[in-house]
Parts: sequence; structure tokens; C-alpha cells
Amino acid sequence: MKKILLILFLGIHAMLSAQNPQDQKSIKEIFNEALKNGKSYQMLKDLCINIGPRLAGSPGAAAAVEWSRHIMERNDFDSVWLQPVMVPHWVRGQQEIARVINSKKMGTVSLAVCALGNSVGTGPSGVSAQVVEVKSFDELKQLGAKTVQGKIVFFNRPMDPTQVNTFAAYGGAVDQRVGGASEAAKLGAVAVIVRSMGVNLEDYPHTGSMRYADNVPKIPAIAVSTKHAELLSKLVREEKELQVYIETHCEMLDDAPSFNVVGQLNGSEYKDEIIDVGGHLDSWDLAQGAHDDGAGCVQAIEVLRLFKMLGIKPKRTLRAVMFMNEENGLRGGMKYGELAKANKEKHIAAIESDEGGFTPRGFSMTADEPVKTKIKNWKPLLEPYGLTDFEHPGGGADIGPLAPLGTAMIGFSPDTQRYFDYHHTPVDTIDKVSPRELEMGAAAMAALVFLIDKYGLK
Amino acid sequence: MKKILLILFLGIHAMLSAQNPQDQKSIKEIFNEALKNGKSYQMLKDLCINIGPRLAGSPGAAAAVEWSRHIMERNDFDSVWLQPVMVPHWVRGQQEIARVINSKKMGTVSLAVCALGNSVGTGPSGVSAQVVEVKSFDELKQLGAKTVQGKIVFFNRPMDPTQVNTFAAYGGAVDQRVGGASEAAKLGAVAVIVRSMGVNLEDYPHTGSMRYADNVPKIPAIAVSTKHAELLSKLVREEKELQVYIETHCEMLDDAPSFNVVGQLNGSEYKDEIIDVGGHLDSWDLAQGAHDDGAGCVQAIEVLRLFKMLGIKPKRTLRAVMFMNEENGLRGGMKYGELAKANKEKHIAAIESDEGGFTPRGFSMTADEPVKTKIKNWKPLLEPYGLTDFEHPGGGADIGPLAPLGTAMIGFSPDTQRYFDYHHTPVDTIDKVSPRELEMGAAAMAALVFLIDKYGLK
Repeated sequence: MKKILLILFLGIHAMLSAQNPQDQKSIKEIFNEALKNGKSYQMLKDLCINIGPRLAGSPGAAAAVEWSRHIMERNDFDSVWLQPVMVPHWVRGQQEIARVINSKKMGTVSLAVCALGNSVGTGPSGVSAQVVEVKSFDELKQLGAKTVQGKIVFFNRPMDPTQVNTFAAYGGAVDQRVGGASEAAKLGAVAVIVRSMGVNLEDYPHTGSMRYADNVPKIPAIAVSTKHAELLSKLVREEKELQVYIETHCEMLDDAPSFNVVGQLNGSEYKDEIIDVGGHLDSWDLAQGAHDDGAGCVQAIEVLRLFKMLGIKPKRTLRAVMFMNEENGLRGGMKYGELAKANKEKHIAAIESDEGGFTPRGFSMTADEPVKTKIKNWKPLLEPYGLTDFEHPGGGADIGPLAPLGTAMIGFSPDTQRYFDYHHTPVDTIDKVSPRELEMGAAAMAALVFLIDKYGLK
Repeated sequence: MKKILLILFLGIHAMLSAQNPQDQKSIKEIFNEALKNGKSYQMLKDLCINIGPRLAGSPGAAAAVEWSRHIMERNDFDSVWLQPVMVPHWVRGQQEIARVINSKKMGTVSLAVCALGNSVGTGPSGVSAQVVEVKSFDELKQLGAKTVQGKIVFFNRPMDPTQVNTFAAYGGAVDQRVGGASEAAKLGAVAVIVRSMGVNLEDYPHTGSMRYADNVPKIPAIAVSTKHAELLSKLVREEKELQVYIETHCEMLDDAPSFNVVGQLNGSEYKDEIIDVGGHLDSWDLAQGAHDDGAGCVQAIEVLRLFKMLGIKPKRTLRAVMFMNEENGLRGGMKYGELAKANKEKHIAAIESDEGGFTPRGFSMTADEPVKTKIKNWKPLLEPYGLTDFEHPGGGADIGPLAPLGTAMIGFSPDTQRYFDYHHTPVDTIDKVSPRELEMGAAAMAALVFLIDKYGLK
């Protein structure tokens, strides 16, 4: 018992002693500067309104590359450079059509749909077929080829609204979007309709990437709005022979040249130890990509800008990284990891912001136990700013390729209750972003980078 | 040292043992029901769109009284009743006008303004005078009557953006709005313009209540948008003789009859112990009062509805209270306290939701130490839902009059970073409310009411 108490005591003592008054002061200065003079929102507004959608390979993505290079150069970062990377180049083409064509009750019913990213199109002649609804791959397999052959499979398992963590709800449903087409094609289906990844009943569809399995026919895949998923489900239940017509004009073009954009502040003492903070520059083509992930990009730039504005000279090297092609290929993240390995760079920590520009709640971490313990001991310094959640494993898709190099994977964790209302939809626009929430997120990341830079992670 | 460790240990032990698995399960059921089938958002949408603005004494307020009575009756609460209360009846009249009339640089400049609640109007002839800017009452007093006499005083101290708690920033600036007119009138001013209580630079003004001191001339008071406060300040600094014309048509009419609306579920074991949960039904006249405080009203109703839907029979008596006239008089809150005292009712706890329908973060409390300790010991049950903040004193304006009766004062504390973007403005509308955030708030309150009901507070 005494031993347990001692461990408890030492743990608490370690936590309290982490509250170095000088660190408290520095972190207060970071938050003050961000909340008074922060530039995240101004940058994001510019990116959203003047650049707009920027799917990998698109003119918008090229413009965003130049935009972020300019911004970082204008902020006098020590160096700013582009990392060339070839990216998939998928285009949506003209507006998709989907309609129920033979409802006895309702006649023709137009559905709110969009093609899923990377999907093949139907072309101008479209596809018409009977609809079979399933909730899972298991259910699909049980139906088998005899039922599915020649049909359109409708995947309609909703995100679980009772999950407090909306990303867990997303993770529990997104297999349908990513792998549904190939699973259905294996049994002879001609197309798939996937219920949008949204928690609420909405009028608009959510796009997002899908992937074709090798050696399986590629069939068209679309998302339908959650409201119309409910409607379609009702009709399919009531009318056995219900048919839908789908017409999409999307196609995958040849890979296109693009870039990651990197800005750096050189370390003064341990310049070979790199701390990355980043987001992805590409966005879906349907909207401005304000929360996904313009927010993460401007916050990454803002972290370095705050260091400069406050005259904090980093001991270690800090990098703001705008990754390209997270949404439908991850080529930028892979290229960044590949170059880090080839150049024998030492990335001690990478922080990704890709859960929206909302009020900060904490950081997720996947790292060695001593590293996690060290970071958790800083919690009392961050709690006054509402950062209380340091318990979940995590990181980010773009920084993932750094993990094998021993880099601590850290994910910025904001409040994500609203995230999936906007994610991959036409409503992910600047008006959905609160300036204060966005700036506070940047300050939270700058505070963590400050501590990692000052103390290292060993 | 051993003693300290023992106390630490006992404290931690008490915390852990509060995690009764049955309570965990019940609270999970409450959140599940709210997130799957919650009705807060649907109710709020109805209130915002079909009733709309509802300042005390207005037809909208009368409609809102009937609306909430109907809703609670339709939900089969054990009893629903109205508490008559006379309320101040202030009307805005036609659109306010304010313009700079003699700028050498810019000529005539229209300003985005609105009259402050309870203010007298200028009438159709308006008021023109030179403008004197001050940042505080101290600065005003230093200028003295010789400078202020016959002038319009412009109070321009902003809310401090570096306060992480936006309510603290509000508290640090709102004296200008509430008391500025009388302070200026004491020195002979003819009107006041107050910088809006908003953290960002915005195009629209924020209204809100002001109060006249006894035996001081009543002069007109208006709020100006934060953007135009900056502009006006610049002009006043550059041009010494700058004059503004103000025209407002607001007036205070005779007190009007209105009501608090109360719904009740009877307690099965300790029916004389009452737990209140409430918000205020009145809102400013400029918008729908979605966050302020339609959210609190529908959440109060939802708490009782969740108990009914889940078949939880309360041991104690639960009341959902829609208070009238919080915004410009607090008559409803005072009447409720007065009746509680007169009827010798025992209100063990009152929870007010009046900080917006945002993601729940915790509860503020003003109560005896043992009561606070008891509630804090429930923290491990609420933390999985993001409720981590139980350390601040608080309660709510409407429940305040119950404090002298020994009632524990509890304030629902959501994330308030966005609150003052909407507060008292034309943009406090239903589209600013996230359904999930609103329902989670109701669930958080229902969970706390569940625990107080089950265990009491002694």
C-alpha cells in the first residue's frame, strides 16, 4: 500500500512540478498573441474565397501550392520549398444524376447524390437497375451473387449517433464508402449507392474517397444524402422491383505533377531534430475545404508565425508542412516520409491538424510510453486553455509514413461534434469557422510545439 | 507526509468508487437517447421559426408562453402551470439612425447601431452633438462636466480577447452598456454610444439591457457595431469637432402581464425536495434568440422528457422552468423565488442553462462545500462525455433569487467561444445551433439531475 501511495505521490508531484512559472508565462503569451493578433482566420478566409476547392491535380490545387509558398515567404520563414510529387488526378465532370424511375407510389424521384472520389463514371448512357439494400458486407455476402447480380447495391448503415467521438462513428461506417464498390462488384453488382457519412439528416451528399480492389471489375460508386438514403430505403422496402437510374461523368486521368509545401524555422541548438506541424492542402471539389483541411494548413503556418512574432528562437528545427493529396491518395504524405528516410532526417515529433478548426480539447498520441508520459506531464500547463484530453491514441494520415522512423505521432484534437456536418460536403465553407476557435487551435499547437522544442522528447 | 498521502489516497478512492457501474449505464442511456432521439433541436427550430423574437411584454413573448405550455402538456408532464408576473414592456419602435454629420474627410457616415434595451428614445427630432470618446468611467470622471457637458459620450473599451473565458471578457466590459448612460448624464452628456459587446469586428450591433440610476436625467443610449466603433474612434481622434446625429424611437410602456411557465414531474419518495432546471423564455427583439436562450428552454423541457422516455421515475420532484424577462428586468426569476419562499418550498438544486446550446464542458457551482464536493465526486461519470470543468463558481440570473433559500446554484457550462458572436444580435438564429451540441447539453443536464435525484445533495 505504502508503495502504491508513493507512486501516486510521485506522479502527482511530477505533474505539479511541470508547472514551471516561466512556461506558464510563455504559453499565456502564445495564447494572448493568437487571440489578439492571430492571422489564422484571415489566411483561411483568403484560401477559401480566393482559391476555393483544390482537389489534387486540379488548377485549384496548383493555386493553393503557390498561395502557401507566398504566405510563408512573406512571413520570412528561414526557408520555404516545394517537394515535387505525382498525384492521382480525378475529375468529377458534369453534375451527377440519380433518380428512382419506377416507383408506383411516387413515379420519378430525383436523389441528391455525388460521385465518390476515384470512382469510374457511368458515362452519358448511365446505368439503370433494381436496387438491393444492405447494411454490411456480411449481409451482402449472405445475399450472394444470385440476388446481387446485375443490381445496384445500396449500402445504408448509418454512422452511430450515440458515439460521443464522431470520428469513432465515422470509422464504424466508412468501410461502405471505401470498399463497398469492389465488394458488390465481386458478386456482379453494376453500381453502388452509399449512404453519406453524416450524423444528421441532411439535404446534401458527402463525397470522399473509395478504392477499387485489384482484379475486380470497377463499377460506379455514388453517395446519397442521408435524407434521401432514408427515402430510398423506405421505397425499396415497400416496392420490391424498385429501379434507379445513375449517370456520372467522373474519370481518373493520368497522374499529375504537384507538390508538398514546406516552410521552416531553423533550430539554434539541435537543428537536426525536426518538429513537424501540418495539415493537408488538397480539399474535395465540392466546397472551400474550410475545416477539411484549410484550417490545419493555416494553423501550421500560424504556429511558426507565432514563434516569429513572439521572438521565440526555436532550439530545434520547426517545419510547417502542407501535404498534398490526403483526400484521395496520400501521395504527399508518403513522399514526405520517403524523403525524410532517404535524407536520414530525424523527425522527433509530427503534429497533424485534420479534425477541423474547432475549440481545442487536447492531443491524441501514438508514441513510446516515456514520450507520452512526458507530454502528459505538461497537461497542467494546457488545461487552463480547455485542453484536457490526452488519453487517446492517434496522429494523422499524412504524418503516418514518419512513424516507422520513430517519430512521435500527435493529432490535434478539437471538439468534433460539428465536423461531420460539413466534412466532404458543399457546406464546408468559411462561414462555418469561428475565428476564435480557429486561433485557439493554432495557439494550442504552438504551445505544445514550444514545450517539445524547449525540452525535447527524450 | 503520511497524512497528506492518506488524504490524497482517500480522495482518489472516493472519486473512483463514485463510478458505480449502474450509474454509468444509466448515464449512457440518457446520452444515447438524447443523441438518437432527442427533441431539443426540433423544439428549438419550432420556437425560433414559428415564434421568433419574444421580448418581455411583446406578442412574441405571449406566444412563447403558450408554446411552452402546450409542449409540456403534450409531453404529459404531471403538471404544467403559469406563474403570473408583471413585466417591463420596452419597445424599439422604428429603425434607429446614427450618422457622423460633419467629417471633413468622409462627410456623412452612417453607423450600424441599435438602441439599448430600456433606453429612452430621442424622438423624431433626434440629438446632434460632438462626440467624446472614453474607455472607462474613471476616464469619464477625469474629463469632468466641463468637457462632457452637452456632448455624446462614446464608451469604447473592447471586450478583452485574451480572456479564454468569454464571459469573463463580457463581465469586464459590460458596465459601459449597463451604467454608461447615467454616468455620462451625471456630467451633462446628452446621449451615449457604447461599443457592442462582441469580441470580433462585426457589421452588426449587439443590443442588451441598460439601467438608469435614480435621480439622474435619462439620456438615450445606443450600441454601435464593433467595426463602426473602430471607425468612429479613428474619426474622433483625427477630427476634434466630430459630431454625430442620433435618432431612436424606443420607449418604455406600462408594465404588461406575462408568465413564467413551469412543468413538473412529481417525486415518488421525497416529493417535497425540488430540483429545478431552467432557461429564460424571453429573448431580444432583434433575432430568434436561438442560443440566448431558446436553447436553455428546450433543454430544460428535454431533461424532463428524457426521464419520461427512459422510464426513470424521479424520487424527487423535477421542474422545468421557463423564466420570463431575464433580459431586461429579471421579474420572472424574482417572482419564482418569491413564490418558492411564500410557499415554503424546498428547492435543493437549481440548474440554469443560459450560456448557449454548445458542446457541454461542465457545470459551475455556488453552494456549500460538502454539496460541491459531492457533485465533484460524480465527475468520473461525466468526463467520458467531455464534461471536465467543475471548478468555477456560478449559477444563473434567473435562479439567483433561490440562493437565499439554501438552493445549490448550478450553471450549465458549455463551450462559449462562439457565444458572443451571436449574443443579443440579429444573427442569433437557428442555423447557428448544432443539433448534436444542443442535444448533448440536454443530456449532460439530465445526467446531473439524475444523480442529484438519486442521491440527493446532503
